Amino acid sequence: MDIRHTFGNNLKHYRTQANMSQAALAVKMGIDRAHVSAMERGQQNVTIVTLWHVAQALDVEPAALLENRRESQNVVNK
Amino acid sequence: MDIRHTFGNNLKHYRTQANMSQAALAVKMGIDRAHVSAMERGQQNVTIVTLWHVAQALDVEPAALLENRRESQNVVNK
Repeated sequence: MDIRHTFGNNLKHYRTQANMSQAALAVKMGIDRAHVSAMERGQQNVTIVTLWHVAQALDVEPAALLENRRESQNVVNK
Repeated sequence: MDIRHTFGNNLKHYRTQANMSQAALAVKMGIDRAHVSAMERGQQNVTIVTLWHVAQALDVEPAALLENRRESQNVVNK
């Protein structure tokens, strides 16, 4: 899967897990809600510093935002 | 640690683990050796697509290049 979609899917997963709206995350990061939405739709080739700021705002490890969770989930569901 | 240094340290770790020179990695990725060197010194705020290409060239998972290995190593060394 394209890394931008992997990042977007993980961003949405951890944001909703934290019960945070796109708007709340945008405010916390000082960016526009539309930018959060575009990142979640896999349309942003973000830099690793931006990814780092997202991870800090969601209180997750940066690497977690690039994890291929579908594979790790398959292993769990077996 | 700044994510650019985390990325650079991991890039160097997996490159040397693969017994690959900076020049060989540069050729494999179609970039300049100086760019590989700058990434390893934590001086490049690369995009996630560039990180993905580095991961593919080193045959590692993209998330591995952002792992905080010092912490995971401490756990191993205990």
